[in-house]
Amino acid sequence: MTTTLDAIATPALLLERAIVEANTAAMAERAERLGVTLRPHLKTAKSASVAALAARGPRREITVSTLAEARHFVEHGFDDITYAVALVPSKVGAMAQLTKRGAVVRGITDSVDAVREIAAAAARADVRLPMLVEVDCGLHRGGIAPDSETLVPTARAIHEAPALELAGVLTHAGHAYGARDHDEVLRIARDERDACVAAAARITEADLPCPIRSVGSTPTACRVDHLEGITEMRPGVYVFFDTFQQRLGMCEADEIAVTVVASVIGHMPERGRLLVDAGGLALSKDVSPNVFDPGIGYGIVADERGRPFEPRLVVREVHQEHGIVESDGELPFERLPIGSRVRIVPNHVCMTVAAYDRYHVVERGLQITETWERCAGW
Amino acid sequence: MTTTLDAIATPALLLERAIVEANTAAMAERAERLGVTLRPHLKTAKSASVAALAARGPRREITVSTLAEARHFVEHGFDDITYAVALVPSKVGAMAQLTKRGAVVRGITDSVDAVREIAAAAARADVRLPMLVEVDCGLHRGGIAPDSETLVPTARAIHEAPALELAGVLTHAGHAYGARDHDEVLRIARDERDACVAAAARITEADLPCPIRSVGSTPTACRVDHLEGITEMRPGVYVFFDTFQQRLGMCEADEIAVTVVASVIGHMPERGRLLVDAGGLALSKDVSPNVFDPGIGYGIVADERGRPFEPRLVVREVHQEHGIVESDGELPFERLPIGSRVRIVPNHVCMTVAAYDRYHVVERGLQITETWERCAGW
Repeated sequence: MTTTLDAIATPALLLERAIVEANTAAMAERAERLGVTLRPHLKTAKSASVAALAARGPRREITVSTLAEARHFVEHGFDDITYAVALVPSKVGAMAQLTKRGAVVRGITDSVDAVREIAAAAARADVRLPMLVEVDCGLHRGGIAPDSETLVPTARAIHEAPALELAGVLTHAGHAYGARDHDEVLRIARDERDACVAAAARITEADLPCPIRSVGSTPTACRVDHLEGITEMRPGVYVFFDTFQQRLGMCEADEIAVTVVASVIGHMPERGRLLVDAGGLALSKDVSPNVFDPGIGYGIVADERGRPFEPRLVVREVHQEHGIVESDGELPFERLPIGSRVRIVPNHVCMTVAAYDRYHVVERGLQITETWERCAGW
Repeated sequence: MTTTLDAIATPALLLERAIVEANTAAMAERAERLGVTLRPHLKTAKSASVAALAARGPRREITVSTLAEARHFVEHGFDDITYAVALVPSKVGAMAQLTKRGAVVRGITDSVDAVREIAAAAARADVRLPMLVEVDCGLHRGGIAPDSETLVPTARAIHEAPALELAGVLTHAGHAYGARDHDEVLRIARDERDACVAAAARITEADLPCPIRSVGSTPTACRVDHLEGITEMRPGVYVFFDTFQQRLGMCEADEIAVTVVASVIGHMPERGRLLVDAGGLALSKDVSPNVFDPGIGYGIVADERGRPFEPRLVVREVHQEHGIVESDGELPFERLPIGSRVRIVPNHVCMTVAAYDRYHVVERGLQITETWERCAGW
């Protein structure tokens, strides 16, 4: 069923298929050149159709951030999943259900105490769960420092628990999002790799297995010089990119794949304002790219074909269902009558897409050829 | 089916039924005392079960901010709905479908040009749509100033369109959220009332009908001294309240009805951090109450029974699925082992609840007796 942009209810997500194809192909090629498995993080896309483009290996290896995602992807045939948020015992039952459907679903941990409880829960659920030790490479959002005295005991506790299997180590350099230039991203990418390799070395030196050595974030995946000693990487936002990644230098504007289509719902020429029906829920309240460019507000406004207006239009303020658009120059009221459509480029696409249950897939400009379901919740 | 807090997957929404009952009863009483109809704004709750408590009149009169809400509430028997976001022609078809199911669904507008297009769309859809003129009482988010020369022509354009019906005027003092004290809220509440009354007077003086004179926001509804000349009010967030409303002085902490239950997923004692599985998606990135109290971060952390910790624990930083909890004092790691549960009080509940598809209804402390569905999307 092909339709046009005018026919869909606003606000809605538009996904440019050709851009997603190019982004996912480029990262797959990069992983191959770096000699590692690409295990894309689907926390951004939460869509089996996007995952099918991103995960190209025969085992359909992916990363998720919620068990709702894990269920969604198992239902769509993905069978090798890392749930990359520290596991708690109460979630073991839900993981066990997926394991019993034939999928490998592995958890992560940074705590010997948690390992004991997780092992007991896995035994009660009658499954053997693979677990990775979470390593802190500088983000300080959980994880064990590679030189910490608790690293090997945690790995050993997993290895010795009959209901668990020590699958390796995992780290995430989320602090690369705070880097100001390519050199700093490269330095963080090296830290991420080196922390992972160092942790794995200590574990194997203790005669414990460490088959998976997993790193990953989009900035570090884009910039790292080599990944010797690493087996896989887990970038996520690269499937779509966004204004934050663009300002961080990880993509060009024309590599941003997802936009929010909104309707112009009001004109306030006397106040230099134009209103759209995409507000805080439709765009999210993430203002992260403003650290690079304080004028961005809640998103950059583009025309129906995705070309940003010149002079720039931005969503300066959001209410729940209203976006207030302002311009550095004159607002083009005549070009944007009430009822006309604009596209808004997301600041941080992971947050923006979360409000929607589907992507409208755009091809050849304004033709919508498919809708791709996405999952939500936990 | 009664269950306990421990049995639900985290993060999740908890709703204290007794508090919602008290909040909705208090506002209903206030509307009666003020001599106006209460038309609660369900943009916050998006739940027919909450709406049934909030909308007590025989016609089940409510306000919505999306057509997804309108559909949800029509399906649950609500038959008198104001869609309080400026209507665009492309949405008339969806409204017409609800009208044909027997519901009154009225739109709002501030533009003669839009009226012409909306009238044409209504005629094509073979419905007669009631429309309100949106009045700007100082928020400057759409609406016509009561003394504007376009006010009466807009009302007349509606009245003269065969497919439309002039139903009255509507205004919203959203700028009351920016007030710093009760006196300022009262002043804004009077402006809201007076702007609405003045606009209605100009319309009736032009021999046009103006049966509905609608005002509303939670702060102004809580503080206004009288509503002579007004027929209805549309507060919304009062059904749940939140930290922002509490800091604004509109409620006490024990009148906040909804919290996010989260699991402790990590300890970083060496960094003074504790991690929970409620991050930017589970809490939203709304930081509005920090204007009153810059230490609040992304939410105040309470124990399993909803009692805030002393010294205060707050979610200082959020990643997509991680909340980083810090304290002004010592973190109670022993009291909060990995896997234990906390509740997080939402900064701005309208944004927080949007990520969830249901409320877990709590009674008598920790007993969950029901789940109430909520709608999402557009």
